[in-house]
Amino acid sequence: MTWDHQQAAQFLHDRDGFLILTHRRPDGDTVGCAIALCKALRRLGKTAYVLPNPDATALFDPYWGDVPAPADFQPDTVVSADIASESLFPPNAEAYKGKVDLCLDHHPSNTGFARYNCVEADKAACGELIYRIITQWSPLDQETALPLYLAVSTDTGCFVYSNTTPHTHRVAAELMETGIDYAGVNKRHFRTKSYTRLRLESRMVETMDLHHSGRTAIAALSLRDMADFSATEEDVEDIAAVVGQLAGVHTAVTIRELKPGECKLSVRTAADLDASRVCALLGGGGHAAAAGCTVYGSVDDAKAAILNAIDQVQGETGATGG
Amino acid sequence: MTWDHQQAAQFLHDRDGFLILTHRRPDGDTVGCAIALCKALRRLGKTAYVLPNPDATALFDPYWGDVPAPADFQPDTVVSADIASESLFPPNAEAYKGKVDLCLDHHPSNTGFARYNCVEADKAACGELIYRIITQWSPLDQETALPLYLAVSTDTGCFVYSNTTPHTHRVAAELMETGIDYAGVNKRHFRTKSYTRLRLESRMVETMDLHHSGRTAIAALSLRDMADFSATEEDVEDIAAVVGQLAGVHTAVTIRELKPGECKLSVRTAADLDASRVCALLGGGGHAAAAGCTVYGSVDDAKAAILNAIDQVQGETGATGG
Repeated sequence: MTWDHQQAAQFLHDRDGFLILTHRRPDGDTVGCAIALCKALRRLGKTAYVLPNPDATALFDPYWGDVPAPADFQPDTVVSADIASESLFPPNAEAYKGKVDLCLDHHPSNTGFARYNCVEADKAACGELIYRIITQWSPLDQETALPLYLAVSTDTGCFVYSNTTPHTHRVAAELMETGIDYAGVNKRHFRTKSYTRLRLESRMVETMDLHHSGRTAIAALSLRDMADFSATEEDVEDIAAVVGQLAGVHTAVTIRELKPGECKLSVRTAADLDASRVCALLGGGGHAAAAGCTVYGSVDDAKAAILNAIDQVQGETGATGG
Repeated sequence: MTWDHQQAAQFLHDRDGFLILTHRRPDGDTVGCAIALCKALRRLGKTAYVLPNPDATALFDPYWGDVPAPADFQPDTVVSADIASESLFPPNAEAYKGKVDLCLDHHPSNTGFARYNCVEADKAACGELIYRIITQWSPLDQETALPLYLAVSTDTGCFVYSNTTPHTHRVAAELMETGIDYAGVNKRHFRTKSYTRLRLESRMVETMDLHHSGRTAIAALSLRDMADFSATEEDVEDIAAVVGQLAGVHTAVTIRELKPGECKLSVRTAADLDASRVCALLGGGGHAAAAGCTVYGSVDDAKAAILNAIDQVQGETGATGG
């Protein structure tokens, strides 16, 4: 059943014994929403916890506080935050498939897997929806505003992505006015990089190939690169952004060698080339502006394969460049 | 004389024949404010122009339109936008020293050089002040909202710097609601880097020195580096940010070799070290968190000199690290 945020707020207000779920490979939006909702429910006198997420990185350590659920907690009401489908549940949430009472989300692709589904797809961040729900109960306090600011800022790249709306900015203003350390959140999440990350980015830039008069850029991170800098998965989060920012580039390809003989490719394109058609030629898929595929071979094999696929789609469509 | 924004709006409404000045080495705030004010005055039926700024980079080309003043324009009213003192006038504005009727600014250091001075130092961007002035005359339109969004976003690093306030976000929301292409502005100014810029950053990271268990980082750009990538001044704009983002670093030093035997140093520090004291030892100065100095010698000489100065100030204050 589909609900609006007022129905969702009423339901939460009426129930108790909450367990809140976050999605696999959690980002600031799912983490921030779950923590803020948990704290707001506790302010209503409810028992509420967030299911610990085994994938959560140290980046979110400052926000958890005492919200993680003890292992033996038996919920009466299960709520999901920022989860588009049950396939995105972390491993320890498997037992809750088919048992979510209320799904709170903003993804257009939401599958409506819960008993009640409140999905506001016009919101840049799920945090904007949680803001609307919890401000119906009482004014914001810093305990709820800080994780909501985390949610709203991270899902918009700190208000820079094209999903950002006037509503996003107005919510941010309200959250900031509670007196939270938003500058600290900005510094931590948007103005800090590890030395390892910086060196990985440098290696990618140094070894980047440009084609089609600079309209196509192909960068790669090999297993050797990862080993050279003792890099972890955390260090390569959203690494495709490095190529994506290059001026004049219409097609940005990032290749990651995941194991010997297996490369994962991310392809981002401007309007003149359909990334999903390019990746489909290599057995992958995605959207027109961003798609992906896997090539079984070396980094050099992957470069040759994707360049060939780009040329093929350009030849078919008569596109003038990559 | 000091004026509030309502008095400034009334004065502008009463006068005509406007020439608007921008500051030396113009940024998005001074350029955006001048253009927005010019267009808003024209909507009131006034004659208004912006004095062309010889230092303006190509980054701002899309915004100028028909506002630059013809060479023979004789103003009746001279207004400055985002200029803290007459020493910041570009060379072609020298003739207007002592002749500015109204100064509109947000710098706490404003010298009050004009006949009437309207300075709101609590604003992150001068664009927030211009917004308050022109919305007293009529609702925003896209022609004024786009340059104001440029002003507000660039002076806050797209809402990430610690100067950003709730007011900044609320103004951004109002500007965005006019239907401007704010995503295009964000992409152009915050999500695009030239290949030359990326390669300069990589070179800096590759050659960076870490000291004091990683708490001090010293990066350099030599004349050789600049030549290797045919880099211009535009490519090195705010290049000190590269070292400043490094996780765990308390003291970030960026050295630029300006000519053989002359290096300019930028020093940014956390609360445990006074950057101005460090730079004072080398004949420079600045603020506690950000200062600068010049070392006459090679890049290696400059590295040795600044490291020695840091050690000396740390020794005096008993600071535990850089």
